[in-house]
Amino acid sequence: MSPLKRICLKLKDKNLDALLVSNSANIRYLTDYEARESYLLVSLKKSFFVTDFRYFYEAKKRVPDFSIKLIDGSLFKLIAKLAKELKISRLGFEAKDLIYAEQQKIREELDKKIDFVATYDFVEELRETKGLKEIKKIKMATRMAISAMHFAKKIVRPGLREIDLAFEIERFIRIEKKAGISFPLIVASGPNSSFPHHITSKRKLLKNDIVLIDLGVDFQGYKSDLTRVFFLGRIPSYVRKIYSIVLAAQNAAIREVRAGIPIKNIDKKARQLIIQKGYGRYFGHALGHGIGLEVHEAPHISEKNKERLKAGMVFTIEPAIYLPARFGIRIEDMVRVGEKGCEVLSGGLDKSG
Amino acid sequence: MSPLKRICLKLKDKNLDALLVSNSANIRYLTDYEARESYLLVSLKKSFFVTDFRYFYEAKKRVPDFSIKLIDGSLFKLIAKLAKELKISRLGFEAKDLIYAEQQKIREELDKKIDFVATYDFVEELRETKGLKEIKKIKMATRMAISAMHFAKKIVRPGLREIDLAFEIERFIRIEKKAGISFPLIVASGPNSSFPHHITSKRKLLKNDIVLIDLGVDFQGYKSDLTRVFFLGRIPSYVRKIYSIVLAAQNAAIREVRAGIPIKNIDKKARQLIIQKGYGRYFGHALGHGIGLEVHEAPHISEKNKERLKAGMVFTIEPAIYLPARFGIRIEDMVRVGEKGCEVLSGGLDKSG
Repeated sequence: MSPLKRICLKLKDKNLDALLVSNSANIRYLTDYEARESYLLVSLKKSFFVTDFRYFYEAKKRVPDFSIKLIDGSLFKLIAKLAKELKISRLGFEAKDLIYAEQQKIREELDKKIDFVATYDFVEELRETKGLKEIKKIKMATRMAISAMHFAKKIVRPGLREIDLAFEIERFIRIEKKAGISFPLIVASGPNSSFPHHITSKRKLLKNDIVLIDLGVDFQGYKSDLTRVFFLGRIPSYVRKIYSIVLAAQNAAIREVRAGIPIKNIDKKARQLIIQKGYGRYFGHALGHGIGLEVHEAPHISEKNKERLKAGMVFTIEPAIYLPARFGIRIEDMVRVGEKGCEVLSGGLDKSG
Repeated sequence: MSPLKRICLKLKDKNLDALLVSNSANIRYLTDYEARESYLLVSLKKSFFVTDFRYFYEAKKRVPDFSIKLIDGSLFKLIAKLAKELKISRLGFEAKDLIYAEQQKIREELDKKIDFVATYDFVEELRETKGLKEIKKIKMATRMAISAMHFAKKIVRPGLREIDLAFEIERFIRIEKKAGISFPLIVASGPNSSFPHHITSKRKLLKNDIVLIDLGVDFQGYKSDLTRVFFLGRIPSYVRKIYSIVLAAQNAAIREVRAGIPIKNIDKKARQLIIQKGYGRYFGHALGHGIGLEVHEAPHISEKNKERLKAGMVFTIEPAIYLPARFGIRIEDMVRVGEKGCEVLSGGLDKSG
């Protein structure tokens, strides 16, 4: 069933006549088309794509399930007019996306009899499990990220600065792979690897450095996200020990993944192993995050998540140990949940350092 | 007077006890520090910088005028607690920045006796006129953009694709100039130059092409934005004519700029000249936009703006003529308003094509 049809079913279920979609990833999900500062008005009768002159003509060709409306003057008045045409009495909006001032302006323009109802994760919930077309794109984004990681391993060497390496990898993705990056890529070398949110710096790579690389590719809107750690020379036995703990934690979590398992168990599996080895306090973030049209989306793979895994979910598994100001190890892969286990989408990428 | 003191004066004026600042450019303006997903609570008594573990320790050193508070658990409860401590009774928030769901959650946590008041452009209005420190940074960003444009002129040649050229320019800005880009830079060649919002494509530059380049540099948060058109060979006399009209329109507008002049007159000056020459319908956007911590900020230089210019405003002047599917000419410079005229910040950059 198409995403649009699923939304319509959900509208009935929630006793709404229509939903105003403002979140750009949700718009892309429902239209398979990318347009900024646009809106969807999805109703049981008819659905509108409201956009400006930049996208209007192209959208007419590429978004057949929607009636395309040109913003020519007030966006808010246009939405109110369409809502009136559709005789809507209960209209949902995306409370986690709409800016307060916009929400107020639309409310002012809407007919007073219309209920303007805050909704939460209305479209996002459907996006949690991926369809086959989506999986294909995610796999392509993952394959490209693997190529980029191979490229990185080939060129990484003492003397390069972190930003130079990051730039060359980005060039590879954009020029060679003709794709985009999912996020500003992270090159964290030496002690910088101990900061989970390090911003790629001008530090020069040294002999025997640890180099942590976290990168992702955007292929037709779908994202990938992988992390590997490379060693520029000899690996001290202590570093090797930490590396093997992180890797064992990741493997333990991966083995646990299948439809029906409580999400918090996946995090727990990796975390307990790290705790048992005495490094629990050095693993300060959740085990992973859903990924698709956004780099971070549902499901959040954390101790607090009370949901269960569903077949078709795609997320990262990225245990880590960060020893402050010394070094950090993080290994990040992407998995797809199946009924009886999982597929490691980035399974082809070496983890030997 | 520091931006923070000016905000406090304005609070008194608007009968507010405090302002919750969520807009990241406004946070940077008030703290001279960049942090994502952070908040300021500015009050007449004491001001707080609310941030997470990524920025907490650095902010303690670098943001002396604020008491730094760590988000450790619920952000919304923390804001409510601080508001209570300060005995606030009227608290403003930024209606054009805060997401509806966040506004609702903060409202729920706040003491019921507190008025939570929507404000519009409270900080943005102060940002319209730039102080000397800001001008210095804008000038540096402009100088770097000029260098990048020189670099572009040096390397542009038939056979390169638009994306290759864009990538080389970006590399120059990031690696040579150690700065950032203000926005994804635009290279629009041949007929692509006729689309005001062209997205840099894989089109190969041809002999005798027009190449329009629109680029900007981010230096310590402050942006520049310049456009030039280059010719790869012979310039047909018709193109030369259009170019000279756009240039004359720009010069006419620049001559008009000084404190006290109605903003709409600046737009009018350039537009009338283009209309008189018979190309009015091919200049479909406003003449320019304010620039500073954001690429587009107040004042909008359009026919509809009823305000007057103030000394210290900085904005672009970018008249254009777009002949659909044929070619387009846009020339964009940046000016600073003075009492008796203006300084063209990008005056050093050649306009001979």
